[in-house]
Amino acid sequence: MSTVLLSRSEVKSLMTMKEVVEIAEKTFKGFGEGTTINPTKVGLDLGETAEYPPYEGFMNAMPAYVGWLDTAGIKWAGGFLGERKKLGLPYITSLILLIDPRVGNFKAVMDGEWITSMRTGAQTAVSLKYLHKGPSIRLGLYGAGGQGHTQTEAVAAVFDIEEVRVFDINRESALKYAEDMKDIVKGKVTVVDDPRDAAWGDAIVCVTQSKEKFLKNEWIARRTNVFPMGSYQEVDDDFILSADRVIVDHVGQCLHRGALKGLVEAGKFQESDIDATIGEVVAGKKPGRLSEDDRVLCIPIGTGAMDIAVATVILERAREKGLGGHFDFV
Amino acid sequence: MSTVLLSRSEVKSLMTMKEVVEIAEKTFKGFGEGTTINPTKVGLDLGETAEYPPYEGFMNAMPAYVGWLDTAGIKWAGGFLGERKKLGLPYITSLILLIDPRVGNFKAVMDGEWITSMRTGAQTAVSLKYLHKGPSIRLGLYGAGGQGHTQTEAVAAVFDIEEVRVFDINRESALKYAEDMKDIVKGKVTVVDDPRDAAWGDAIVCVTQSKEKFLKNEWIARRTNVFPMGSYQEVDDDFILSADRVIVDHVGQCLHRGALKGLVEAGKFQESDIDATIGEVVAGKKPGRLSEDDRVLCIPIGTGAMDIAVATVILERAREKGLGGHFDFV
Repeated sequence: MSTVLLSRSEVKSLMTMKEVVEIAEKTFKGFGEGTTINPTKVGLDLGETAEYPPYEGFMNAMPAYVGWLDTAGIKWAGGFLGERKKLGLPYITSLILLIDPRVGNFKAVMDGEWITSMRTGAQTAVSLKYLHKGPSIRLGLYGAGGQGHTQTEAVAAVFDIEEVRVFDINRESALKYAEDMKDIVKGKVTVVDDPRDAAWGDAIVCVTQSKEKFLKNEWIARRTNVFPMGSYQEVDDDFILSADRVIVDHVGQCLHRGALKGLVEAGKFQESDIDATIGEVVAGKKPGRLSEDDRVLCIPIGTGAMDIAVATVILERAREKGLGGHFDFV
Repeated sequence: MSTVLLSRSEVKSLMTMKEVVEIAEKTFKGFGEGTTINPTKVGLDLGETAEYPPYEGFMNAMPAYVGWLDTAGIKWAGGFLGERKKLGLPYITSLILLIDPRVGNFKAVMDGEWITSMRTGAQTAVSLKYLHKGPSIRLGLYGAGGQGHTQTEAVAAVFDIEEVRVFDINRESALKYAEDMKDIVKGKVTVVDDPRDAAWGDAIVCVTQSKEKFLKNEWIARRTNVFPMGSYQEVDDDFILSADRVIVDHVGQCLHRGALKGLVEAGKFQESDIDATIGEVVAGKKPGRLSEDDRVLCIPIGTGAMDIAVATVILERAREKGLGGHFDFV
């Protein structure tokens, strides 16, 4: 029984960001309609917050079944600082396993880092498709690293970007981002030196590893969509508590990680404060924004279902093209 | 960055049951001492109990860090009836991924079915090492399938088996088991036709897919150790509630799956009714049995840490011997 093996470069060669966005949209729709099954991920703390073991990393196990593709799989992915950073390796490490959901045979093992980055961008882009009237958009961006790039690429696959204002604590990173985005962003890329100046436009996207709540409530104008994508809390308590709409991708996960975690633990935010899931909005079951004036907090923290859906389409293409290795585990 | 790939036959060729038992014992000790980190597994229901999707299967994601080997990994394993059974494939399907816990690189991908079966047997054997004074033992066995074989093999790696009395709803299976166990069991193997007759000896092991509570409280004599290993409840409520000692491998998991699940959901059994973990007993932090007379209920439902520990030693040996395939995922 042969299992297909795909490397990062093979995975990357088989799909565009535009296609990842389309797959993410269908998978979100499945969430809303009940055909995407996505248990809350389980983490293994290898020193991200735990004292033992002390490796400044974590791994998340993210299994899912995706009905519109009739596929199942798991992504095991994590992030490491410490030794991994010293070696110059990317923050994310990940493999994705796919099975035939009818019989459980392993169809594929593939690198998950590229897919993770792409689908994380795509999640934001799909959400904006339902929260912002196109065709053009103005973007504020915190964090000019890898995720900053893919978030921008994904938004550019859905909208014409009029302008991005980007802030990074490392100005060099922001300048490099500006250079890299020349062909992606139709309008201009402005590197800002005062973090306040990136809090503008139709959508503010935060992709930082900040443990500070740097984005202040008073910086955020009406009509803005705010996406805090980081693992820790990037946005002021006051904004979270005063946002007109709170929309998340996965209720269970969003209560226990990222932007909402601290307020949930403090008893100031609870499940009933979430207005809708992105899936419900995409499936037309609940509205996105109620008014043009709303300030919307949208948190697509990331679901395995997106990874499994993208990986499944990539596997189909690899088979068509005869790409990848093979191994008989059984 | 090369990842080692190991097939089932390669995995199997690299270790004996006796060694699996030794690894399981050290890993249990780590549980007791806090150096084995094993989050509660997360399941993906593919129709085992859920209505959708309808594939009569499930997959469990079982990540773990094992301190005495300084290793981390995940097993994604499940069981399927339905189509898989019709195809004549084994119930279990599984892959194990190993990472370097310091930097997150993927060291190996290997079949997990053999390791799952072996370590499940080993968990019982290690528990008995601390619950039953050797060197010989008398065994009652329900379920003469694959797990019946490996449970017996594991116990035989620690004790001289005086006699096994085995019951299976399929008598042919029991007869085949008796034949297969000739060289493993020092004493005799008796196939019994009345289920009541297998409820005897020093330890009663249940490895069935029964959804009936077939093992009656009144069948279980004093001094017996009872191991209900099935996914559903095999043992009478009355026995669970009247056992002198209840010992489990993993508190979180045992409350939500297997023998205790129904009583927990009915509010009749709770965390405080668990007397000790196997890890605490192996580490000498809590006693196993308090008296020779105790009826002990012991539930080693299965932890990913055992799989990761065994897989890690197997990987070391594969490297020494130059066995296995290689693939550069990154």
